[in-house]
Amino acid sequence: MLHSAGPGRDPLAIEAQAVRWAGDAIEYVDQRLLPHETVVRRATTAEELEDAIKTLAVRGAPCIGVFGAYGVAMLRAQISDDKKFEAAVARVREARPTAVNLRWAIERVLKSKDMLVEAQAIHNEQREIDRRIAEAAAELIEPRAAIYTHCHTGALATAGTGTALGTILFAARAGKKPRVFVGETRPLLQGGRLTYYELTQAGVDATLVVDSAAAISMQRKEIDLVIVGADRIARNGDTANKIGTYALAIIAAHHRIPFYVAAPRSTFDFTLESGRDIPIEERSAEEVATFGETRVASKGANAYNPAFDVTPNHLITAFVTEYGILRPPYGESIADLQLRPNMSALLSTS
Amino acid sequence: MLHSAGPGRDPLAIEAQAVRWAGDAIEYVDQRLLPHETVVRRATTAEELEDAIKTLAVRGAPCIGVFGAYGVAMLRAQISDDKKFEAAVARVREARPTAVNLRWAIERVLKSKDMLVEAQAIHNEQREIDRRIAEAAAELIEPRAAIYTHCHTGALATAGTGTALGTILFAARAGKKPRVFVGETRPLLQGGRLTYYELTQAGVDATLVVDSAAAISMQRKEIDLVIVGADRIARNGDTANKIGTYALAIIAAHHRIPFYVAAPRSTFDFTLESGRDIPIEERSAEEVATFGETRVASKGANAYNPAFDVTPNHLITAFVTEYGILRPPYGESIADLQLRPNMSALLSTS
Repeated sequence: MLHSAGPGRDPLAIEAQAVRWAGDAIEYVDQRLLPHETVVRRATTAEELEDAIKTLAVRGAPCIGVFGAYGVAMLRAQISDDKKFEAAVARVREARPTAVNLRWAIERVLKSKDMLVEAQAIHNEQREIDRRIAEAAAELIEPRAAIYTHCHTGALATAGTGTALGTILFAARAGKKPRVFVGETRPLLQGGRLTYYELTQAGVDATLVVDSAAAISMQRKEIDLVIVGADRIARNGDTANKIGTYALAIIAAHHRIPFYVAAPRSTFDFTLESGRDIPIEERSAEEVATFGETRVASKGANAYNPAFDVTPNHLITAFVTEYGILRPPYGESIADLQLRPNMSALLSTS
Repeated sequence: MLHSAGPGRDPLAIEAQAVRWAGDAIEYVDQRLLPHETVVRRATTAEELEDAIKTLAVRGAPCIGVFGAYGVAMLRAQISDDKKFEAAVARVREARPTAVNLRWAIERVLKSKDMLVEAQAIHNEQREIDRRIAEAAAELIEPRAAIYTHCHTGALATAGTGTALGTILFAARAGKKPRVFVGETRPLLQGGRLTYYELTQAGVDATLVVDSAAAISMQRKEIDLVIVGADRIARNGDTANKIGTYALAIIAAHHRIPFYVAAPRSTFDFTLESGRDIPIEERSAEEVATFGETRVASKGANAYNPAFDVTPNHLITAFVTEYGILRPPYGESIADLQLRPNMSALLSTS
């Protein structure tokens, strides 16, 4: 039995907003305008789909995948000419060339018998993965727990309920009244812009901090646990995630606070032996030299701007996946995970 | 014998700019416009002095003290009527009611026989303290050392050469070619705006990072040492400094990198037994929800914004003071420091 977190607010309501099939269009929240304005837009053509992805109005790898899947199904219903349809699909697929989920989802829809049904299946699997991660996390989150999180791992990124943030929203819906500290996550401030927004929209008690206040927060605010998402996890449990995650893990270990990583099986890269094999993307110095519209350091400033860092396995208390909680030794528990079927197979046989 | 750091650049040249007695006016760099514009302004009246302090065009506790000292000497030369002079002085003194250095410096000038000579003595003592701190630090900084620093502790804050930043600038002047990583220091970005500026002005190899990239920098960039300033140090060595310092100390300890605090004797508060006695100022949530013109979270967002944190003594490798390097046990080395005369007494008897 689930309880409401606050008067009239469902912590999971935002899930329905991120991407939605509306019968004749795909509706999505324009993430560029958040948190200042919540604008729901409609995409009805290949041009509009491409534009939404290119301009980052829709972002977050799983979310883009779901968006593209619905998009292709919609285009098929509109365009009977195969050549024109293929050109329209190419336009959507190439909107972000490095988005693996987008290509994977579009291929899967194209190969299916009923494209709309397949797109909905992809969306449902995403929701189911997030729901199972949150269920697995329930035993880690006590009532009124104080939780520290970083970056954005919510509904707007996955089109489900999110990974790390999803665990918090489910805890809120279960009436646990978590208190959440959110690191703003420089340079692009996903924590301050998106996570803080999703939490307050969901009626959850949220407190924003600058990233460097993580240590004093853990020292003075009785933080019970840290939970973050992941971008890529090696076979030994070394975890690449948004810059600042490694610092948080060190600081949590110093304060003997459990440090959890919530991630679906698809984030584990079973081909990588350890974190040493994970390349670190370095992004533009301008992201550091500026703050939104405001300039900090002069143009051409020299900055080191790694997008990710790698947290070594020994600083991670456990992983929370859709197949339950993985504990050390990770060599074994991650090898077990590899043997599990993916969610598509699981749902289609159940 | 000192060497130049680069073609035509003296790493210490900025010291002359921060505050300067120009015969008929006080010249100062308008710190609000840095690093985008270096504008030297002149203050010639009580109104202009007050305005410069109130608007934070002049900032940094020791710097404001030197500025006020020169200011009062200038006003005395202009205003023969005692009542009018007192009113003008009050205006300057009250420009920032909590600035202890400002009141102390003005009182000292008022009590002296020759006000301009006294103001210059205060300025010289400040320079001498910074110079001696930098000399003491020389043995800690090897040629081509990679140094991580935080916040702003430079010439613009002290009207000398700065504390932690001063040690780096002296090392550069001595031809050691340090490589410096600067944490931007959210929320007010003093590292990104001022420290990065001072270092590049001085021709020092500087790299700007977001604060949460400190851990990956220490892991991957072969950082040799961390050096920071301090706002207040207790008798046992617990140190209050800009938010983020405690996180840096934990991260440095994790990587077995020495963590140094550079601070003058005046920063040690011999009345405080430990860091537990240091109150932590909490500042406006809006500083976290915004930067400059850019809004992150919505107005009224809930943020925890401590201006400082307290680094426990066991995470500090050594203190660098104008009386040399203090090592643990700090109970003893700080008690020794307390017995030393202040710089004023030292210089007047030498």
